[in-house]
Amino acid sequence: MDRYFEDYQVGMTESFGPVTVTEEEILEFARRFDPQPFHVDPVAAKAGPFGGLIASGWHTASLMMRLLVDHYLSAASSLGSPGIDELRWPNPVRPGDRLTMHIEIVQARTSQSRPGRGIVRTSTTLTNQDDLPVLTVTAVSFIRTRP
Amino acid sequence: MDRYFEDYQVGMTESFGPVTVTEEEILEFARRFDPQPFHVDPVAAKAGPFGGLIASGWHTASLMMRLLVDHYLSAASSLGSPGIDELRWPNPVRPGDRLTMHIEIVQARTSQSRPGRGIVRTSTTLTNQDDLPVLTVTAVSFIRTRP
Repeated sequence: MDRYFEDYQVGMTESFGPVTVTEEEILEFARRFDPQPFHVDPVAAKAGPFGGLIASGWHTASLMMRLLVDHYLSAASSLGSPGIDELRWPNPVRPGDRLTMHIEIVQARTSQSRPGRGIVRTSTTLTNQDDLPVLTVTAVSFIRTRP
Repeated sequence: MDRYFEDYQVGMTESFGPVTVTEEEILEFARRFDPQPFHVDPVAAKAGPFGGLIASGWHTASLMMRLLVDHYLSAASSLGSPGIDELRWPNPVRPGDRLTMHIEIVQARTSQSRPGRGIVRTSTTLTNQDDLPVLTVTAVSFIRTRP
């Protein structure tokens, strides 16, 4: 069911997932965008600062985005994002981790300058199978009001 | 040449690139991680909020990361990142855009809790071929001190 700005209410919380992250995906993403040893070389990673291979933080953020598109945003109303605040990667993501997204709407207001548009601020946490946070971020979304 | 913490000095500025973003890459990234119409469907995108296909903001951020790995970080000293602050996408990235990265080191200090480690804060801007900013972000990197 399509969501519009009016459906995003401050205080709403939802959880989605989990998604499982494979070693193959970690390597594939990192070879293209973040080829540091602890992301692309399992042997070097073992001796490195994280004691093993970990996902690029941008890969983790991209997995979060996919969950947002699949479960939280609507093609009918999503108008993109001006940016994000305070993204943190408190714990690494390792091969086989299962990530669940928890979101809370912390602000929702209509745009003063652009009629028909709302501004929704969401506090998002991804946790792994041990309930450890692996990504926290506050994101802003532009959402169309109901026609 | 390998860089260590001591080589990252406050006030240093550098520019890298450009990298060209193709439509094929935009579609490929977005189909996997951000399948919103204005990222994956050129026809729908034309009628959408950006008047054409644009890259996922996470794709743009990942392209920045690749430039950082290729030109700014060193495998010998990079110890990952705890997170980023105030990431903004002030203008969209479109197929064929050529992106240049400009960085400035805004803080560099040794870690109190982890000897042998420095904390470097970098202000980064990606601009397109028209000198319009498409991504601005303040990032924190952990960097090994010179052995």
